[in-house]
Amino acid sequence: METTNSETGAPELAEPHLRQLLGAAGLAVEYVRAEGNTLYLRGEEGEEIPVTDFAGGYGSVLLGHSHPDIVRCARELLDAGTPVHAQFSRHPYANRLAAELNRIVHRELGTEEPYFAIFANTGAEAVEAAVKHAEMDRVMRLADLRGELAKAAASARAAVDAGTATVPERLRARFGIVGAMDDATALRELVAHVTPLNEARLDRRPLFLALEGGFHGKLGLSVQLTHNESYRAPFRGLAAQARFVPRENPEALREIHERERGAVFALTVSGGRVDVVEREFPVFCAFLVEPVQGEGGIHVLSGEFAGEIQRFCAEIDCPVVVDEIQSGMGRTGTLLASSPLGLRGDYYVLAKTLGGGIAKTSAMLVRQARYRPEFEIVHSSTFAKDSFSCTVALKVLELLEADDGAVYRAARERGAALRAVLDGVAADFPEQVREVRGAGLMQGLEFHDQSAAASDSVRELAATGLFGYFLAGHLLREHRVRTFPTASALNTLRFEPSVRLSDVELDRLDVGLRDVCRVLAAGDGARLLGRAAVAG
Amino acid sequence: METTNSETGAPELAEPHLRQLLGAAGLAVEYVRAEGNTLYLRGEEGEEIPVTDFAGGYGSVLLGHSHPDIVRCARELLDAGTPVHAQFSRHPYANRLAAELNRIVHRELGTEEPYFAIFANTGAEAVEAAVKHAEMDRVMRLADLRGELAKAAASARAAVDAGTATVPERLRARFGIVGAMDDATALRELVAHVTPLNEARLDRRPLFLALEGGFHGKLGLSVQLTHNESYRAPFRGLAAQARFVPRENPEALREIHERERGAVFALTVSGGRVDVVEREFPVFCAFLVEPVQGEGGIHVLSGEFAGEIQRFCAEIDCPVVVDEIQSGMGRTGTLLASSPLGLRGDYYVLAKTLGGGIAKTSAMLVRQARYRPEFEIVHSSTFAKDSFSCTVALKVLELLEADDGAVYRAARERGAALRAVLDGVAADFPEQVREVRGAGLMQGLEFHDQSAAASDSVRELAATGLFGYFLAGHLLREHRVRTFPTASALNTLRFEPSVRLSDVELDRLDVGLRDVCRVLAAGDGARLLGRAAVAG
Repeated sequence: METTNSETGAPELAEPHLRQLLGAAGLAVEYVRAEGNTLYLRGEEGEEIPVTDFAGGYGSVLLGHSHPDIVRCARELLDAGTPVHAQFSRHPYANRLAAELNRIVHRELGTEEPYFAIFANTGAEAVEAAVKHAEMDRVMRLADLRGELAKAAASARAAVDAGTATVPERLRARFGIVGAMDDATALRELVAHVTPLNEARLDRRPLFLALEGGFHGKLGLSVQLTHNESYRAPFRGLAAQARFVPRENPEALREIHERERGAVFALTVSGGRVDVVEREFPVFCAFLVEPVQGEGGIHVLSGEFAGEIQRFCAEIDCPVVVDEIQSGMGRTGTLLASSPLGLRGDYYVLAKTLGGGIAKTSAMLVRQARYRPEFEIVHSSTFAKDSFSCTVALKVLELLEADDGAVYRAARERGAALRAVLDGVAADFPEQVREVRGAGLMQGLEFHDQSAAASDSVRELAATGLFGYFLAGHLLREHRVRTFPTASALNTLRFEPSVRLSDVELDRLDVGLRDVCRVLAAGDGARLLGRAAVAG
Repeated sequence: METTNSETGAPELAEPHLRQLLGAAGLAVEYVRAEGNTLYLRGEEGEEIPVTDFAGGYGSVLLGHSHPDIVRCARELLDAGTPVHAQFSRHPYANRLAAELNRIVHRELGTEEPYFAIFANTGAEAVEAAVKHAEMDRVMRLADLRGELAKAAASARAAVDAGTATVPERLRARFGIVGAMDDATALRELVAHVTPLNEARLDRRPLFLALEGGFHGKLGLSVQLTHNESYRAPFRGLAAQARFVPRENPEALREIHERERGAVFALTVSGGRVDVVEREFPVFCAFLVEPVQGEGGIHVLSGEFAGEIQRFCAEIDCPVVVDEIQSGMGRTGTLLASSPLGLRGDYYVLAKTLGGGIAKTSAMLVRQARYRPEFEIVHSSTFAKDSFSCTVALKVLELLEADDGAVYRAARERGAALRAVLDGVAADFPEQVREVRGAGLMQGLEFHDQSAAASDSVRELAATGLFGYFLAGHLLREHRVRTFPTASALNTLRFEPSVRLSDVELDRLDVGLRDVCRVLAAGDGARLLGRAAVAG
């Protein structure tokens, strides 16, 4: 398995297997510089070769690589000896960042309810923080419910002891309490019977809800919320499970709820009779949803389905975690891609562009109505909430909001221009292109499945399981365009450039995609496969 | 719950509850600059007030805050437009970093076995990567075992069909196979009986082993490997569980193994008879161990117990994950604090100082004998393995290794000087100081429990549950010394300064600690509590 570096002869120790695969697809190039919408790769003579970047760090560089204002901000912080490691002190920069995020979120949602911020270092970490918080909240709600059940039992006992309520025969029979006994004894037996049943039910592991095609990270817990089976299955034993809801299918919500709902027995007294009613309790810890699925093939959530999710979650008292890690931070023309959908998150998760392409930072926002201050005492991270990344993130927000939202407008306008190119290719190559989807500067172009193509070599290409990667290799090699398939839908190429995308760069993409379509139309899979193998 | 910022009148949205607690202990100061072993806080007139930092970012700044060479390296990278976001390309810096880590680890362990590197962004993320890898390996070993069980069953069937083996009555009786039937039928019934039993056993959730007092992170899964009950309990439903082993107690290892071990039924043929033997399978995913427990009160693992763990894990085929997040990177005089203990990790986890006090980066190393290349395809992180943090980490290693290991020597020498101060305080205040523990520049001073102190005010102080924090507040306020209790053992103050620690700074610590001891000896808890409350 050990691979050797062709230049140094030393063994490759940082993911040699992945490097081989990238090499096979012609993607194992070395980038040496990044600026604006361009990554420069090192040519054979050591020269820099510009590549137009449509991968955009999977959404991390909406403002462009090495944005001069962000670089300046970072340098100033370093020059000033910013106290990066000042844990457990005041963090005014973190509070300023939380306040600014609130200001923008309030504007977009039309609300004034505060969202408290917990900072983390990566998108996946912020997802885990949100989910941990939601579980703490659920466990505390279960504790409240246990208290209510005990109180209801005590009330029933008091009523029976006072002679104002009886334990009817029908109720005794229902719970198998047989034999002649007075009401007090029967009630005691009833409570002794239902309490362990309730405890067993309440001790059930939490379940998550997430959408098919969803991606929420790859850490031990978050990977179980990520739909892709190959990412998730080997690690199933490590964490709580999700039920995955087919996209745009409100019926499935009800079905999963019917199948998985949990209820406990609660005592009541009415009309002088003790009774037992079923009370639903929160089995579902959280519903995770991306307004635009990144890794699942760039699928945009409809406002209608967003509304269904919102109503469903309100009914079952399940918090909605809106994962804006890839879609947010202005990429679709608003800070939150979900706000134009009318979706109101109990939690929001932001990362990627929040760090401006330099810092590693993320934020989990939770609305006041759900917030548990106790969480601050049990959750923390050495690297999070630091002066460097909070200040960089504040600079990012400043740039987004500058000139009355010029970046948001640019994301919409450049997004429309990008979309026009993709739609044009789709219109001219209907046999190759299945669909174009997306919002703003987050677009995907799905190719038709080629596993039954007429051409042997194209079928062979599809059979590699790396279809989109070979197309990406061709675009890189022949057209100096960088893109990738989405991670869980390899027939869809992703386009997430920066707002600095130029018309010239769009023309290059247009030419490249049309070439790919022509190569596929010509059945020339060998051109994609064969030359790629040489380049690797 | 909403707290208002006293300066701006705006609500505090980034952990206001924590801020209140810090304020109560006199710790809610604002640091504005960091250099060497000093953090500067902002005084009331806006002036900078130097504070000697013994907290050291919980181990993140062994080389000192804002180390000039690291700052220069970071600036040069920014100036050069380093391609931070160049995922899925060649990452020669990551390979160089992996190679350099290997070179040093090989020297310390006296081995040449390669350790493959998976990079992450924080210590907790690297723990999760290690644990995910270990689980993938375990699941693949279980798949191999399933194959062997099927093969053994097929061999038995072939032998029975060929008439060379029988299914003895004793074996039939053991598995409840009754009635007259030929050997082939009996074997079929036997296989039909044990296969689902085996499957149910193999499907059991994995268990982890970790030490009491251990800390391995606070993400969804890693928090379950962290012993502290208050961090772990609310989130128990979210992830697989650990069994916690009392420190320095080899007996407990055997007991837990006896209680939790799992075995399956495997068919054998010998002496012309089919038999069923029990075969143990890997229930334990990994054993996590810190050579020096950071958050658990600075407890140093003994070489003897390290050897016991090593032998035990080898016997049950459970990989050892050595968590060097806080202890490693030279803090105790070697890159790995575990290497002088003779402990050989299947995995190592490094973070904190690896980022040089500026970058957020971490690495998980796994030895070739355990490595699963498939892991590279299913695990990844957008922010990890980037040019910026890999290059900074290379600079950190260069500084550690420079001048024939001058930093390692300094860690030992300064560590000894620090230890001498702490031992001196302990010797002079045996009624206040219970014990001093540690290695190199990772030392802890444990105070006697004060919950039964003669003084009302000292008992009150202990009863706050924030004992060590109030002491830290006093040290900060009166002596300009920054330290904290360890997170899970609040009577122990931690000292993890940089190698740039001066004798003058040590004198300040000496004076401060003696003052604290005198205040406690005088029963003057009010001085710690009361003034702290005002300062908050």
